[in-house]
Amino acid sequence: MATFPDKASKFIDWYLEVVEAAELTDKRYPVKGMNVWTPYGFQARRQLDAVMIREIERTGSKPVEFPTLIPQTEFQKEKEHIKGFDAQVYWVTKGGATDLDIPLVLRPTSETAMYPVFALWIRSHRDLPLNVYQIVNTFRYETKTTRPFLRVREIHFFEEHTCQADEGAATERVRSNLSAFAKMADAFALPFVAIRRPEWDKFPGAFYSVALDIPVGGARTLQIGTTHHYRENFSGPYGIHFEAPDGTTRNVHQTTFGLSERLVGAIVAVHGDAKGAAFPSAIAPYQVVVVPIVAASGGEGVLPYANALAERLRSHGLRVHVDDSDERPGAKYYRWETHGVPLRLDVGRREAEAGTVTAVDRLGEKRSLGPTDLDTAIVAALADFDRRLRAKADAAFASSFSVARSLPELKDSSTVRVISWCGLEACGHEIETAIDGALLGVPEGRLPIDAGEPAPCIACGSTPARWALAGQPL
Amino acid sequence: MATFPDKASKFIDWYLEVVEAAELTDKRYPVKGMNVWTPYGFQARRQLDAVMIREIERTGSKPVEFPTLIPQTEFQKEKEHIKGFDAQVYWVTKGGATDLDIPLVLRPTSETAMYPVFALWIRSHRDLPLNVYQIVNTFRYETKTTRPFLRVREIHFFEEHTCQADEGAATERVRSNLSAFAKMADAFALPFVAIRRPEWDKFPGAFYSVALDIPVGGARTLQIGTTHHYRENFSGPYGIHFEAPDGTTRNVHQTTFGLSERLVGAIVAVHGDAKGAAFPSAIAPYQVVVVPIVAASGGEGVLPYANALAERLRSHGLRVHVDDSDERPGAKYYRWETHGVPLRLDVGRREAEAGTVTAVDRLGEKRSLGPTDLDTAIVAALADFDRRLRAKADAAFASSFSVARSLPELKDSSTVRVISWCGLEACGHEIETAIDGALLGVPEGRLPIDAGEPAPCIACGSTPARWALAGQPL
Repeated sequence: MATFPDKASKFIDWYLEVVEAAELTDKRYPVKGMNVWTPYGFQARRQLDAVMIREIERTGSKPVEFPTLIPQTEFQKEKEHIKGFDAQVYWVTKGGATDLDIPLVLRPTSETAMYPVFALWIRSHRDLPLNVYQIVNTFRYETKTTRPFLRVREIHFFEEHTCQADEGAATERVRSNLSAFAKMADAFALPFVAIRRPEWDKFPGAFYSVALDIPVGGARTLQIGTTHHYRENFSGPYGIHFEAPDGTTRNVHQTTFGLSERLVGAIVAVHGDAKGAAFPSAIAPYQVVVVPIVAASGGEGVLPYANALAERLRSHGLRVHVDDSDERPGAKYYRWETHGVPLRLDVGRREAEAGTVTAVDRLGEKRSLGPTDLDTAIVAALADFDRRLRAKADAAFASSFSVARSLPELKDSSTVRVISWCGLEACGHEIETAIDGALLGVPEGRLPIDAGEPAPCIACGSTPARWALAGQPL
Repeated sequence: MATFPDKASKFIDWYLEVVEAAELTDKRYPVKGMNVWTPYGFQARRQLDAVMIREIERTGSKPVEFPTLIPQTEFQKEKEHIKGFDAQVYWVTKGGATDLDIPLVLRPTSETAMYPVFALWIRSHRDLPLNVYQIVNTFRYETKTTRPFLRVREIHFFEEHTCQADEGAATERVRSNLSAFAKMADAFALPFVAIRRPEWDKFPGAFYSVALDIPVGGARTLQIGTTHHYRENFSGPYGIHFEAPDGTTRNVHQTTFGLSERLVGAIVAVHGDAKGAAFPSAIAPYQVVVVPIVAASGGEGVLPYANALAERLRSHGLRVHVDDSDERPGAKYYRWETHGVPLRLDVGRREAEAGTVTAVDRLGEKRSLGPTDLDTAIVAALADFDRRLRAKADAAFASSFSVARSLPELKDSSTVRVISWCGLEACGHEIETAIDGALLGVPEGRLPIDAGEPAPCIACGSTPARWALAGQPL
């Protein structure tokens, strides 16, 4: 059977082949960078979405959906924003045979779709905060090489947009987004670092941007989300203001929080290995696959036993698939390993007669379970798998960072680098050149590793300077 | 407080005002016919989607998602289909400042997006049946007057696409779709009739089309879905074929099943009344609203009692809202009535002290519940409301049809008409002219009312003829 390229030395090749083998997407759709969500990939996405919905709604955010198409006139109201997106939006110019009076943009993100309507919704301080989110597709006319989930032209996207009474409340919402994401990331078993991006890399139109970055081997990082503070940058141009308790009219302060299908890519990148994809059970399309092993002679009771077991596990809320196809067991083992299924249960005649299973989890742990408390043992085996998958990801995360104390050290970095930076843009660009990547910015909260005492700027040597991160964003 | 226009005599005015008052959508988005799903409307849609997903997955259909944009080259492969949609598709012609080599269509429906990929997925009879569905938005450059949910330019859409080994299996899938829809309609409390459309009104490219029609007062009907048999009409042009067990290569036979946000409109149209919208509890954004009534003096215990009650009901799986806004109780009653909430629970000091509630359902039934088995009594009150809402809809449905035995009788019909038709198109058009509407077609299965013995064609007088339905589709 095929083996995958080496993950460490040929990461992108490894990633592309694993995604292909796991059947998470079909890239053969006849528009480059617009891929098909297969049944298996869609199930992973559905679980991801469910976690996002659960955690964001716990913070009081409500679901909405705004139109896909944005009139050019609205799209162009905020100057920095349009500059940031102008080169990469799709334009709808015709309806039937008619040229549209006002061309329409396929949303690249929904600020300019939502904010004219927010201006109608918000009148008084009693209408605040407004916290709404939507899960929709966005579109970017990507000119770089596209990669499934990581860089595509139609993007499955989560976006929260909020309006707050003042800057402090908006700052608080950014913090609340970060803690909501921490809970999501826990379900995804994805250790991450929240980093305030440097000025030159913030979202077009933002006051500041905090990115959620995940190290994915070497100096590579994957930005899987962002939360932005907009201050009044959009509420001014879009006229989103309210009557304050003192009778004055004020602009709202806004925030956004965005996540995307890159999370699917991040899960593959972080948890996958030489055998293919690996899903934490909260996200796995199938949490358990039962493989009935029916020998040429005998084994009549095996399939009914497998099906009854699957039904019981489903009644406990598990997503279970019985692979009763006519492939050989070895082919099935390989298939479900590449597909990242957390727990495989092999049942042959011996297991069916004894009321047991041979359980093999995606990290290779093999054990015989049952007959006493079989279902409980299976649920426990799944929980144990999740714990070990998480521990493995945490260990990889911890070794993904190292301190660099001079610019030359940044060359050929084999981890994301912790460096000291004075905050000047010129120094930032020197650092970016040295690492052949990006200054990711200053982490919010504590550093992912202990860097010791403050040090002078790695570029200019001046103090004060702050610990920042530099790497190679995918 | 505002009253609504008369539903019977001014249906569309009534409908528009009820949708507005119930805050199900915001029409003020700056593109005509593209509306905003408000938090309240989105919640109704979410429940609708959940019912659709549950019932279609029970039949073995799997979720997928295909891209929104379809290359012109693929879009034009099936001749009838393109003729049917050409005048009403949106065209993407530019990416950034670049003219696209091949213009892209925003999907009006996904046959032409999916079928090139189905041709890759299907190789052997073992790949059949292929039953997949997606819930996405579709786009139509509508030139007629747009109406929220009923006729919009961006449409929330459910579409199942299947490939079967032969015509019989495809016919069976159409039947299976009809019974899946019957289960959905049961949750929506929407009595419907499945009607095979006449040839001149079938889906572009279909072998035949069965529509799901709902009478909405007078002779008006609302088509809320369809299931189509395509035979080989698409599989030929798109090359979707398979190796049969006998080694021959055959085209698949295809079916589709489509439902849309019109269901939201249908629920408003069927269940709504002079007081506004009314939702069956399976679909209601909030199933229960608790209104704490706090008098100027006293009532300290009321809000905690209301909140604790709401928490308990939520733990039983109910969607509950506590309206603790500072509006007066009368304004709240009006609000939740227009919004169609099944059950309102008023709690004042007396109720809080006694451990009771005053329950008022959306059909006006008022009763004191508790203190014994309060939660159970509330759940039962909700079930009782659903039964009576359903009975009311069934009674309205039964009186929505009447037999007509001559063309002149069709003028100014006050119901949908049951008429006898020989099957000729010329006679069909005479009937359409007489009723100033459409020949809906011949019902699948039994007629919604008993029409007695077969009669000669209402237009030409010839026999044999079949009972058909004629009405005024919205």
